Amino acid sequence: MKATILFAHGARDPAWANPFIAIRDALRAAKPDVRCELAFLELMQPDLPSTINDCYTAGARHITVAPIFMAAGSHLKSDLPKLVTEVQARHPDLSLRVLPPIGEVPEISNLIAQWLAAQS
Amino acid sequence: MKATILFAHGARDPAWANPFIAIRDALRAAKPDVRCELAFLELMQPDLPSTINDCYTAGARHITVAPIFMAAGSHLKSDLPKLVTEVQARHPDLSLRVLPPIGEVPEISNLIAQWLAAQS
Repeated sequence: MKATILFAHGARDPAWANPFIAIRDALRAAKPDVRCELAFLELMQPDLPSTINDCYTAGARHITVAPIFMAAGSHLKSDLPKLVTEVQARHPDLSLRVLPPIGEVPEISNLIAQWLAAQS
Repeated sequence: MKATILFAHGARDPAWANPFIAIRDALRAAKPDVRCELAFLELMQPDLPSTINDCYTAGARHITVAPIFMAAGSHLKSDLPKLVTEVQARHPDLSLRVLPPIGEVPEISNLIAQWLAAQS
């Protein structure tokens, strides 16, 4: 089984999570055969390690972590690799892959620029 | 004259700004008649008030602030309105408009979900 976990920062305001929930729900609709979850670095639950463990326990052996961040700062360059390394050590038979932040994906940043141009 | 200011969080790592610079450059290419700038809430320069002031001084009277954030937390619900209110008070003849965060734009979040589906 495959799983994709959207990884977001987290915030105090519960409404902050809504755009991420919308993306998770759209991903679930597009990929009904893939388990799609949402996890947070801080301030919101669930956290990433427990979400990876849950997917593993449910049978996922190929897990993709997708940081829904615009850019890679210390959260993605330091915090995330640490979490991934720890979970990987616990489950040596797990294939764990981390995608680039969405802001570094040219087709996404191009669409953002196009949308901004239409508003400018 | 019109201006659009991309508003990003900021980070310690200079490379963090690259995706935002790429979007600003694409926007400049798409809208050569609009002044397009990038400003930060913290940790990076320039800040938003000075960038708005610079655009105003250069003649812009219609300024769009585009938060390049996935979601609205306290930075967009509290910090940004304060900054905008202060600048607006200084320049009553300035038309200042704030866009929703990009993660709340359905066409952008749909593309993110599509891209994630292709990677899942």
